[in-house]
Amino acid sequence: MKPFNTMNNEELTAAKGQLLAEFNSHKAKGLKLNMARGKPGDEQLELSMPMLDAVNSGSDFYAEGKIDCRNYGELVGIPEAKKLFGEYLGAAADEMIITGSASLNLMYDCLARALLTGVLGSEKPWIKEEKVKFLCPVPGYDRHFSICQFLGVEMINVPTDNEGPDMDMVEKLVSSDSSIKGMWCVPKFSNPLGITYSDRVIKRMAALKPAAADFRIFCDNAYAMHEVYRDVPLLNPLQACKDARNPDMIYLFGSTNKLTFPGAGIAFMAASKENIAFTTKQLSMQAIGWDKLNMLRHVRFLKNMAGIKALMKKHGEILRPRFDAVINKLESNLGGIGAGEWIKPDGGYFITFIAVKNTAKRIVDLCKEAGVILTEAGATHPYGKDPEDRYIRIAPTFPSLNELDAAIEVFCTAVKLATAENLLG
Amino acid sequence: MKPFNTMNNEELTAAKGQLLAEFNSHKAKGLKLNMARGKPGDEQLELSMPMLDAVNSGSDFYAEGKIDCRNYGELVGIPEAKKLFGEYLGAAADEMIITGSASLNLMYDCLARALLTGVLGSEKPWIKEEKVKFLCPVPGYDRHFSICQFLGVEMINVPTDNEGPDMDMVEKLVSSDSSIKGMWCVPKFSNPLGITYSDRVIKRMAALKPAAADFRIFCDNAYAMHEVYRDVPLLNPLQACKDARNPDMIYLFGSTNKLTFPGAGIAFMAASKENIAFTTKQLSMQAIGWDKLNMLRHVRFLKNMAGIKALMKKHGEILRPRFDAVINKLESNLGGIGAGEWIKPDGGYFITFIAVKNTAKRIVDLCKEAGVILTEAGATHPYGKDPEDRYIRIAPTFPSLNELDAAIEVFCTAVKLATAENLLG
Repeated sequence: MKPFNTMNNEELTAAKGQLLAEFNSHKAKGLKLNMARGKPGDEQLELSMPMLDAVNSGSDFYAEGKIDCRNYGELVGIPEAKKLFGEYLGAAADEMIITGSASLNLMYDCLARALLTGVLGSEKPWIKEEKVKFLCPVPGYDRHFSICQFLGVEMINVPTDNEGPDMDMVEKLVSSDSSIKGMWCVPKFSNPLGITYSDRVIKRMAALKPAAADFRIFCDNAYAMHEVYRDVPLLNPLQACKDARNPDMIYLFGSTNKLTFPGAGIAFMAASKENIAFTTKQLSMQAIGWDKLNMLRHVRFLKNMAGIKALMKKHGEILRPRFDAVINKLESNLGGIGAGEWIKPDGGYFITFIAVKNTAKRIVDLCKEAGVILTEAGATHPYGKDPEDRYIRIAPTFPSLNELDAAIEVFCTAVKLATAENLLG
Repeated sequence: MKPFNTMNNEELTAAKGQLLAEFNSHKAKGLKLNMARGKPGDEQLELSMPMLDAVNSGSDFYAEGKIDCRNYGELVGIPEAKKLFGEYLGAAADEMIITGSASLNLMYDCLARALLTGVLGSEKPWIKEEKVKFLCPVPGYDRHFSICQFLGVEMINVPTDNEGPDMDMVEKLVSSDSSIKGMWCVPKFSNPLGITYSDRVIKRMAALKPAAADFRIFCDNAYAMHEVYRDVPLLNPLQACKDARNPDMIYLFGSTNKLTFPGAGIAFMAASKENIAFTTKQLSMQAIGWDKLNMLRHVRFLKNMAGIKALMKKHGEILRPRFDAVINKLESNLGGIGAGEWIKPDGGYFITFIAVKNTAKRIVDLCKEAGVILTEAGATHPYGKDPEDRYIRIAPTFPSLNELDAAIEVFCTAVKLATAENLLG
């Protein structure tokens, strides 16, 4: 196909007609495919089936220190889970809180509690401030943004490049506006870009001088070891904050949802000892504890960091052909024709497609019409509003390879058709 | 022993000396016993060990409708769990939300969310009101009260008799003060009294005409089937509210913490379909879902209401000798001497001791000195303040029978000593 920007009006009209026919033939197949959510496929879930035998009626049920995991106690988790997932997030055991499934709920809970009661060092509950704002690197994770919207926290878009968020903008905003109480980030294999923040970005984040003394970085390290093509080391954000004498400025979050089972994982947060002590005291008012048998199950199955690495290698091997399928098809169908671009990620769960301005919504709608469900256009931005209507998040993990092939064919046709329509005005 | 109120000063002084010697000999034993928390004993936990095999690497992992419990989905629980625990709480499947461990966290979450965003029918988030108050039947559950205190919700004591809270007072307050947004209650085998609300009380609660249109009864049915001596039927509170055309006024809470494992149970709430739909929409902003494999494990193990009944019968058989041990010892040591009274409960997890005025704190302190830990005096009341310093909650479930015997001996001595001290001024 000829690049769109070299076509004259006549050629564009002809191309549009042809693409519409192509689209209709896809539509006629009555497909029902879903590339909307970052959901592991069956093959991935099978990897963790042995975990279900790790605690059984014949096994013991004790955590370190003879803690009976069946009974009450250990509000913030069993020692071995704190140790292992501390190592996973880059924190010591006494810098950890382990909860139930899932980390998003833990993030919501931290923000809700900050609003209602404040965090360590707060002069008053955040809700008592005239306004509470969060910085949101975009494109980002829709569920982070819905939490803010639900709780009435105003969001400010911060553009992201392949090193991370625009730190000039972050520094300027955070140091000048005391109503900015926090910032979201996914520092590794980010959702949806799949990029990893550079050391430089992490260091600048850690060295922020917020106008709000109780400013917190909500750092969602959801894809800490979720390599697909290559590992990219992440500078330890908690350590960076300690080094910058800002130890209390960051909360790190993670979970086993994409290590073991999204439907039965455990979640955790890491922060300075002082933050953890303060938060633990707060949690003692609101919770009795979380599922300790499931923590034990996880530690017995994963064993140690080598065990996690070996498991994640298998996940990567399952995911790679799926990512390949999407990338190759985008390349062969859309390469060099000026109908948008895409980012080949190093890891994570997504491929980001950056459409021609003002076409993302139309592409998603066309796909839907042909039976292919994508994440809503706009979902990558606060309030569901992608100002240039460009970003589409593709989630290639759940469908089978055949389904993925069929879905991407539809997607490429939709992209071309929407681009032609757009150029014709 | 002679009744205290028949002793003259001299006799009292002699008695006090003797009791102090008795106390010191207890103290010399260096006991380390705990009757503080309603914690099941090992024998009880053993009952549910087969549950740990109900989902394993060889079993399937599907809930009704081919739901893969390992993966994402089903925000508010799997159908069979909604059905079974709906029956358990007296609600239909579509009146249920199933979450993780434990129900206290679910109650906190409901209150936190009501404050931040309001409930169905709220004109504004509760936090935007000048004041938010909850009625607290006393004596009650300390953890309910700490949630309110933590979140800045003002608490009002409501006295309780053996039919439930003083409904004249409740009706008067609720109908006249629109800042009263809610009320706690434990309607069956209540914590700590072990009483069950009468039909009359439930009907009057259901027929309340609150000044606040978005008033909610937080009804913690933690001991729905936890009979020790005899079952006492509870009028279905949700049905009663429906019958009184107040279907949205009540949230019911429950959990399997004292059916299966406190450390690995599931929690649930029941409410009108409209409440559940509204709350589910709110939850979709804050959560991804809870452990579905654990829900499946529970349903496979418990099977149906007959299965739950059979299990609870076994729990009752284990608990009865423990309750007997305490009651009998109180009777033989303290019967008829005017050193306080106690309530023999029908079920639940506690025995309430009502000491002579102004002695409860002293009794708990003396016990502590002799190595016997009891729930803090005052814990049965909001802000930890029992206005007459009378209520002590005894939790006989966790210690062995031997330990319990030793602990109650100490307790009885402490009661008598504190009473003598009190009478001597």
